Amino acid sequence: MSLRLELINTGTELLLGKTLNTHLGFIADSLFPLGIRIARQLCVPDGAVIGEALRETFGRADVVLVTGGLGPTSDDITRELVAELLGRPLHRNEAIVAGLQAFFAKRGRPLQPENLRQADVPEGAEVLENPFGTAPGLYVPGTADTPHIFLLPGPPRELRPMIPADVLPRLRAILGDSGAVPETMRQVRLFGVGESEVANRLEAGLAALAGLEYGYCARPGEVELRFIGSESALDAAVALAKSTFPVELFAEEDISLSQAVVALLAERNQTLASAESCTGGLIASRITDVSGSSVVFHRGIVSYANEAKVELLGVRAEDLAEFGAVSEPVARQMAEGALWRANADHAVAVTGIAGPTGGSGEKPVGTVFLGLASARGSTVVEKHFYPTDRLTFKSMIALRAIDLVRRRLMGHV
Amino acid sequence: MSLRLELINTGTELLLGKTLNTHLGFIADSLFPLGIRIARQLCVPDGAVIGEALRETFGRADVVLVTGGLGPTSDDITRELVAELLGRPLHRNEAIVAGLQAFFAKRGRPLQPENLRQADVPEGAEVLENPFGTAPGLYVPGTADTPHIFLLPGPPRELRPMIPADVLPRLRAILGDSGAVPETMRQVRLFGVGESEVANRLEAGLAALAGLEYGYCARPGEVELRFIGSESALDAAVALAKSTFPVELFAEEDISLSQAVVALLAERNQTLASAESCTGGLIASRITDVSGSSVVFHRGIVSYANEAKVELLGVRAEDLAEFGAVSEPVARQMAEGALWRANADHAVAVTGIAGPTGGSGEKPVGTVFLGLASARGSTVVEKHFYPTDRLTFKSMIALRAIDLVRRRLMGHV
Repeated sequence: MSLRLELINTGTELLLGKTLNTHLGFIADSLFPLGIRIARQLCVPDGAVIGEALRETFGRADVVLVTGGLGPTSDDITRELVAELLGRPLHRNEAIVAGLQAFFAKRGRPLQPENLRQADVPEGAEVLENPFGTAPGLYVPGTADTPHIFLLPGPPRELRPMIPADVLPRLRAILGDSGAVPETMRQVRLFGVGESEVANRLEAGLAALAGLEYGYCARPGEVELRFIGSESALDAAVALAKSTFPVELFAEEDISLSQAVVALLAERNQTLASAESCTGGLIASRITDVSGSSVVFHRGIVSYANEAKVELLGVRAEDLAEFGAVSEPVARQMAEGALWRANADHAVAVTGIAGPTGGSGEKPVGTVFLGLASARGSTVVEKHFYPTDRLTFKSMIALRAIDLVRRRLMGHV
Repeated sequence: MSLRLELINTGTELLLGKTLNTHLGFIADSLFPLGIRIARQLCVPDGAVIGEALRETFGRADVVLVTGGLGPTSDDITRELVAELLGRPLHRNEAIVAGLQAFFAKRGRPLQPENLRQADVPEGAEVLENPFGTAPGLYVPGTADTPHIFLLPGPPRELRPMIPADVLPRLRAILGDSGAVPETMRQVRLFGVGESEVANRLEAGLAALAGLEYGYCARPGEVELRFIGSESALDAAVALAKSTFPVELFAEEDISLSQAVVALLAERNQTLASAESCTGGLIASRITDVSGSSVVFHRGIVSYANEAKVELLGVRAEDLAEFGAVSEPVARQMAEGALWRANADHAVAVTGIAGPTGGSGEKPVGTVFLGLASARGSTVVEKHFYPTDRLTFKSMIALRAIDLVRRRLMGHV
């Protein structure tokens, strides 16, 4: 039997529609390997209503996760509401006070008196350390009358690390009491193929594997396949995915496309340079998101204007005039110019129309050319058409460019 | 007094984290001009629990919007649950049947018997036409005991057109009956000051303003202050925020820091260039996220390796050797080199240690120098220390660099 878990997201900004609630998806994904599904998710504004929402779960939920309302401002009162609801006094925790003092001292900022409220802990609660902010999380173990309650910070960068570090181990322990056995899980990641095509080509084969549960998770450009089951079923499922998508499968672990490419370059002792127009630096930024990328990535050029393409990459002004900046010859010259000037092993180039303006009948918004030049190997240029909003376009095309590098390193182009 | 509106999103896929719930944001935004805020948003799986969730709102909500569960499959039972809950019989609506027949005929697909359930309407409900799918929406007017209930389809492309076409006019009519006056909202955005300091310095003044509601929303590096209330209270609140944070306040509207900087540059007919080391292209990417940025941003250099700093920006190799890449002289030369070579009005440069490796006792991870050079005005270099994880560091420092440009354009540095 699984646990009945409810999620309460607090925050007026979520209900005002200013901030997209990404907690639900992240937490649902994290709980998946434990076989726990979220039974209800509620979003309420900051303030006293948080207490009411929590009380409603008593007698119905085994575990309640509450996000938000742990900050230092006057509308952050989750701590106080929970203490009142459970009839437990708040005690100031001196270890948290010391941590707050160190946090502010390190940053050369004064500790505000309001921040000290963040050191108040309901009696019997465990403190969950927050390395990325001033608000620690709290875990109040359940009783006969009340569920296990986790109070977690609202900002995603503070909340997310706490889920694997603090919440999942405690949920495993709670499940352990109830006799549930965690299953094993594997994953594969694919780039450049849609979720429906993945489903269409794998569904029958996966369904035939006894003792296998599987799920899909689609992110822009990427499909993650998760398998849960016995070792032999997992091996068979991964083998099937690999043989069905030999080009598209880029990882069998929880790594990004950029991490996969940096690892491939590092293995081969090779370097990459970038020359970007419409992606505006995002390819370089994605590559340099990877720790250790400085070994394989030495420089990038953002040649947004035509003049910059000529001066920084040696693109021929005549070709810009004849074919336009968004064209096969310009993508090719950008890649080859970047390769030669950086003295790199590979150079990737992008030129396209991100929109919403700048499109034409012949070259509508969403038209893009990707170029890849290598010290050994011929230059390739791919044309893509991806009409969407500006930020999605940039993000998607940066990934496609990085995937082009991966396909070259794997010998597919 | 405004209406108390609650939103119930139904759909197992939402709770599995497979599908991001974008209904909340869209509906909240749509309701905003009417002064209606969403008091609660609940997400429940498909099935009987939808009825329970709806019953909970009775006596508490004036209006309830329910999304999803109107489809033809066996787990789509919102219609039936509502009819049962309200004690109203379902009548098959012949106009809907005719519409379904036409819909399927147009697509050359046979009308399935299951689809006919979509023509069932609880007594007294109004049908809301769905031009993009087979499931019509339904509106059940409120009574003394029950709220106004809107049943709306789950797929965003079917739901979204119904909000302005069918829901908002009815909400206006309901508001008209209750004599409610829509509230107004304003916001200001601050960069470079923490949420607790904003609260500390504004709280007393804001609390003293009659008829003002306010809230904070902190994002990395940024605090958004939202005010709701009468025109005069809003004016006073915004004036207070401006006088308290004359440097930090960068917008009085819903725009990003990058949008604010691109707008300031465009107003002045000036251009910006970038020279990035540890941010790896993220400054350029953030700037080029803004539509129209090509007018003010022509090029950027990602000089990750020392050699690239020398070759592409003219940094002196002796200074790199003597002071190290992360130093005041190098940040200065990067900015001035980028300015001169790009022939721009301003150039911003960043060099620092993103970590997790590469730190030293003298220059620990998180050390960073920001440089800004301008065609008119002296070069400034700021040293910051921001020890955190690599991605947060990149994101935060890119914003700080963009804010340095803003502060120069505003005459603060």
